[in-house]
Amino acid sequence: MKKEIKFSLVYRDMWQSSGKYQPRADQLVRIAPLIIEMGCFSRVETNGGAFEQVNLLYGENPNKAVRAFTKPFHEAGIQTHMLDRGLNGLRMYPVPADVRRLMYKVKHAQGVDITRIFCGLNEVRNIIPSIRYALEAGMIPQATLCITFSPVHTVEYYTAIAERLIEAGAPEICLKDMAGVGRPEMLGRLTKAIKERHPEIIIQYHGHSGPGLSMASILEVCENGADIIDVAMEPISWGKVHPDVISVQAMLKDAGFQVPEINMKAYMKARAMTQEFIDDFLGYFMDPTNKHMSSLLLKCGLPGGMMGSMMADLKGVHSGINMILRGKNEPELSIDDLLVMLFDEVEYVWPKLGYPPLVTPFSQYVKNVALMNVMSLIKGEERWTMIDNHTWDMILGKSGRLPGTLAPEIIALANEKGYEFTDEDPQKNYPDQLDEYRKEMTENGWDFGKDDEELFELAMHDRQYRDYKSGVAKKRFEDDLQRAKDAALAKQGFSEEEVKRMKRAKAEPVTAMEKGRIIWEIDVESPSMPPEVGHKYEPDDVFCYIATPWNTYDKVLANFSGRVIEVCAKQGALVNKGEPLAYIERCEEPA
Amino acid sequence: MKKEIKFSLVYRDMWQSSGKYQPRADQLVRIAPLIIEMGCFSRVETNGGAFEQVNLLYGENPNKAVRAFTKPFHEAGIQTHMLDRGLNGLRMYPVPADVRRLMYKVKHAQGVDITRIFCGLNEVRNIIPSIRYALEAGMIPQATLCITFSPVHTVEYYTAIAERLIEAGAPEICLKDMAGVGRPEMLGRLTKAIKERHPEIIIQYHGHSGPGLSMASILEVCENGADIIDVAMEPISWGKVHPDVISVQAMLKDAGFQVPEINMKAYMKARAMTQEFIDDFLGYFMDPTNKHMSSLLLKCGLPGGMMGSMMADLKGVHSGINMILRGKNEPELSIDDLLVMLFDEVEYVWPKLGYPPLVTPFSQYVKNVALMNVMSLIKGEERWTMIDNHTWDMILGKSGRLPGTLAPEIIALANEKGYEFTDEDPQKNYPDQLDEYRKEMTENGWDFGKDDEELFELAMHDRQYRDYKSGVAKKRFEDDLQRAKDAALAKQGFSEEEVKRMKRAKAEPVTAMEKGRIIWEIDVESPSMPPEVGHKYEPDDVFCYIATPWNTYDKVLANFSGRVIEVCAKQGALVNKGEPLAYIERCEEPA
Repeated sequence: MKKEIKFSLVYRDMWQSSGKYQPRADQLVRIAPLIIEMGCFSRVETNGGAFEQVNLLYGENPNKAVRAFTKPFHEAGIQTHMLDRGLNGLRMYPVPADVRRLMYKVKHAQGVDITRIFCGLNEVRNIIPSIRYALEAGMIPQATLCITFSPVHTVEYYTAIAERLIEAGAPEICLKDMAGVGRPEMLGRLTKAIKERHPEIIIQYHGHSGPGLSMASILEVCENGADIIDVAMEPISWGKVHPDVISVQAMLKDAGFQVPEINMKAYMKARAMTQEFIDDFLGYFMDPTNKHMSSLLLKCGLPGGMMGSMMADLKGVHSGINMILRGKNEPELSIDDLLVMLFDEVEYVWPKLGYPPLVTPFSQYVKNVALMNVMSLIKGEERWTMIDNHTWDMILGKSGRLPGTLAPEIIALANEKGYEFTDEDPQKNYPDQLDEYRKEMTENGWDFGKDDEELFELAMHDRQYRDYKSGVAKKRFEDDLQRAKDAALAKQGFSEEEVKRMKRAKAEPVTAMEKGRIIWEIDVESPSMPPEVGHKYEPDDVFCYIATPWNTYDKVLANFSGRVIEVCAKQGALVNKGEPLAYIERCEEPA
Repeated sequence: MKKEIKFSLVYRDMWQSSGKYQPRADQLVRIAPLIIEMGCFSRVETNGGAFEQVNLLYGENPNKAVRAFTKPFHEAGIQTHMLDRGLNGLRMYPVPADVRRLMYKVKHAQGVDITRIFCGLNEVRNIIPSIRYALEAGMIPQATLCITFSPVHTVEYYTAIAERLIEAGAPEICLKDMAGVGRPEMLGRLTKAIKERHPEIIIQYHGHSGPGLSMASILEVCENGADIIDVAMEPISWGKVHPDVISVQAMLKDAGFQVPEINMKAYMKARAMTQEFIDDFLGYFMDPTNKHMSSLLLKCGLPGGMMGSMMADLKGVHSGINMILRGKNEPELSIDDLLVMLFDEVEYVWPKLGYPPLVTPFSQYVKNVALMNVMSLIKGEERWTMIDNHTWDMILGKSGRLPGTLAPEIIALANEKGYEFTDEDPQKNYPDQLDEYRKEMTENGWDFGKDDEELFELAMHDRQYRDYKSGVAKKRFEDDLQRAKDAALAKQGFSEEEVKRMKRAKAEPVTAMEKGRIIWEIDVESPSMPPEVGHKYEPDDVFCYIATPWNTYDKVLANFSGRVIEVCAKQGALVNKGEPLAYIERCEEPA
C-alpha cells in the first residue's frame, strides 16, 4: 500500500473558473453539511482570492460569509483554506504591509486555518513577508509555486524558490498549475526534489483541467510524494475548471494509494444543490464554453479563462487586419490564421519579456504585446511599438524580478525611452495606510467589526466597500442580474418587446394620476434621476412628481411594496393620465 | 531519450462519439490532405465500425467512401485502419463466416491496411477466425482487448486472452478503453505484461476521455511499452470523445518520448474545415453534452454515449415510481436519488451477470436489468422478474463465454424457466449466406462491384443496402435533416409558424389551378400517398391530381426543378384555386 493522499474541495475556486459570481452566504451555509457528509475531504477552500470581493459586489458582507462557511467545517474537524496573492493580498494591486498583516489576524479569527500565498512572478520578496504575518497570526502559511512551462521554469528553478520559502517558515508548498500547462513528468520530478530534501513539508497540487494534462499530473505528483490534491465536483468539475474527486479517487485507489471513500448519496445531493444555485442566479453569469476543454491552451500557455476574451479581441481586429491586407493586395486571413499567428507571437514574445508566468495580470500583458506586434507586422511596421504602461512596469521590475532575462532589444527600447530599471522590494512603494482607513471609519461612524474585520475590508477593497456600505453595489448587481435574465430570455428567442411584456405581467404599474411632466426628484444640488432597477419602495413612498400645467408638483406614490423592474418615462417627459411610469415587482422580503 | 510513440487519428470514431452521422465522402476527401499535412499521424482510422452503415443511411455508397478516403493516405505512406466487431462484423448481430471472410478481401482491395477486431465479451472464439481471414486477405489483424474495470478483469485475465490472440497470429494488440474506465496503473501493468513476453507485438491504446482518466492512462501505457496512441483533434476532441493530439504530444515529449511534431497551421485548417462540416449538417445531430466530461460514468462503468438515453429512461419512469411511493406513504425520490440507485444496482447486478464488458450491446442489457430491478424493489417485489430475451441469450452463452461466473440465483432462475446453457461456438448458429445474396444481386440485375464489394455490402447490411438502392434511405435522411433543421430553428425561439414561413420564403409553391379534391397518386394497389419531404421533381413531372366536381382528374405539374420541403394538403382535401399544395426548394444539382 502506498502513502495516504488527502483531498481538498476547492468549492470557491470552482465557481471562479466557471463564471462571474460566487454563491451567497446563505447558499454556502446550506451546502456545507453535505460537503462534510461526503466524508472524503480533509480540507475545503472557503475564501480569499477574488471570492471575498465578489461578496461586496452583490452587497453582501464577506466577513459574515467567511465566518458562516468556515464554522461547520471547523466543527467537523475539516481544515479550511484561503487563497491570497502575497503583495497583492486579495486584490489586483499591491497592499500596504500593515493591511497585509491585519488580513491574517482577521482571517484567523474568522476561522481560516491555512492561507495559500502566491505571487504571479514567483517573487519570494512578495511572498516571504506574508509567511511571517500568517505565522504571527496563528495561520498555516502554504507558500506557492505558480507553475508554467518554459526553459527557465525548470525543476531546479522551482526547487530553489521552494527552498527559500521553506527556509522562511512555510510548512507547506502548493504547486499552483493555474493554466494546467505543467507537464506531468516535470511536476513529478519537482515534487520528488522538494520531498527528498524536506520530507516533512506538505505538498498540495492544484491544477486546472483545460488543456487535459491535470489527471496525469495528479498521478505523477502522488507517485512522487504529494500529500493533498485539490479537486472539484459536479456540476462544475472538468472543462476549464478542475478534475472531479470521483475520478481522482478511483485512479489513485487503483494505483495503490490510501484514499478516503466518497459518500455518493451526499455527493449527489450536493451536486443537485449546486445546480440549484446555478439555476437561481449564478448560471446567468457562467460561460457555457467553460465546460469545454481545449488543447489550444497548451500552445500559448495562457490560462483557460483568457480564451474567451482573446477570441473577442481577435474578432475585433479581424476586419481591420483584412482591410490592410486587401490594401496591400495580400491574401486575407481567417480568424484561425490569426489565432495561430497570435499563438506563435506569444511563443516569440514571451521569452523576450523574461518568461513571466502567464497568470493574471501578466498573462494579459503578454497577450496584449503579442497582439499589438501581430498588428504592426501586418501593417509592415516593426514589433514592440505599442507596449502599455502596466507592461512597462513589469518589464522594469516594479512587480518584482522577472524569472528570465529580458531580450537586448527590450532593454535597448527601455533605455531609448529613458525608463529606469529597479530591483527595489516592490512593497517599498506602498507605505502603511491603516491609520487613514481608521479615520475614515470613525468619521463615517462605521463599526470596526469583530477583530477589526470591517476596518480590514475597507482597507483591502476601499472602493468596493464604500459601494457596499452605500447600497450602490447591491443595486448595480440587481441591475446586472436583471439584464442577464433579460438576455437569457432574448436568447430563448423572445423579442425585447416580449421580454418586457413578460416582466410587466409579473409586476404592478405605477401610473400617472393626471397629465403633466415627470419630475423624478426635487433636488437643487444634483440632476433629477429616475430610480435604479432594483430600488425598493413601500406603498407610501413618493415615487416621483408630476408637474402640472397649473404649476403644482403632485406626488405619485409607489402604492406597492417591491422593487422597480422597469422605468418607462424620462425626466421631463409629458405623460397622460393613466400612463404607466414604471413597474414594481412585489417582493416578499420584509421591508 | 525514451522510445518512439506514434499517433493514429481516429477521424471516424470522433464523429461516432459525438453524434449520429459521419462526414460525406466528398468531405472526407477534402479533409484528407490537411490530415496528411499535419505531419504527425502514422495511421488514420478510415472506416469500419458503424461508420460504413452510416454512409448507407444517407444514401451514399460506403465502398466509394472507403476507397476515396484511404487513397490519399496510402499515397502519403500513412497506414489506414478500420474497426470490426469480429463475429458481428460491421453490424450489431452475428455475420456468417463466408461474409466475414469476404469483408477482409474487400477492405484490403479498397486500401485498408489494418483491421481492429473486437468482441464485446473478449471471446477469443469470436475474434480468432477474423484474425485468420484478415491474414489470408493480406490485412494486418489488430486483435483487441475491450477494457473494463472489475475484479475479473485483471492484468492476468487480459494477458491470457492476449496470449491466445497473439498465438492465433495477431501481430498487434489494441487496448480498447471504450468507456475510459480503465485505471491508468492497471493499463500500464497490462501493457508491460504483454510487452515483456512479446516485445515484437505492437500495442495501440484507444481511450475515451469521458470520465477523465485517459491522459493518465496514455502516460502509463507509454511508460510501459505501448507503441501507438489513438488521438482526436478539435473541434471534436475531449468531452466524451478522445484526447487531443496536441496535449498527448506535449505530455509525451516532456516525458522524454520521441514524438512527431505537429504542423499547427495544418491543424488549424483541418479544425476549421471540420467545423464547416459540423455547420453544414453533422451538427444538427450532435448532442452538445458530448462536449462535457462526467465522473459519474466511472461509478457505473457504462460508456459515455449511454448517459443521455439512461437519463431519458429515468425521467420516463420517475413519476410512475413516485406515484407508487406516494401510495405506500413513503418519501418521493428525485431523479438524482434514482440515478444513484441505478448506479448502485448496476454495481450489484453486474457481477451476478458474469461481468460482461459494458460495451454495446451488453451495456444496454445490464442497464436494463438494473433499471427493472430498481422498479421491482420500489414496488416491493423481487429482483430479476423482468429480463428480456436478448439478455437471456447473453446469460445462456449464445454470444460466447461470459468473463465471470453467473450468480447461483441467476442459474437457478434459468433452470426454473427451462432454459439451456450452451458453450457452442457462437458462429455455428449462422450458416454461410453469400449464395443467397449472390442470387438476389443477380435477380435484381445489380452490379457485384469491384472485388465483389457491392455483394459484400448487401450481405453485411442487407436491409440498409436495399433501402440505399431504392432511394428510400436518402429520402429518409433528408426528411430527418429537415426535421432537425426545423427543430434547431424552433430552439432559437422561432414558432412552428415562423419556421414554416422561413422555409417557404426560400421555396416555390405548387398551387392548385382549380377547385377540387387532392389525389396524390392514382394507384389501385396501395393507398395514395403524398410525396416524402426531399422527393425530387423536374418541371414537367406530375405532382398530383385534382378531382374536379365534373369528375375529371387534372394533372398538377411540379413546374420547378427541386425537392419537396413541405406538403400542405391531405389526400382527398378540398382545395381552392390558387391554394398552395406543397413547396419545392429549387436545387442546383443536375437533375
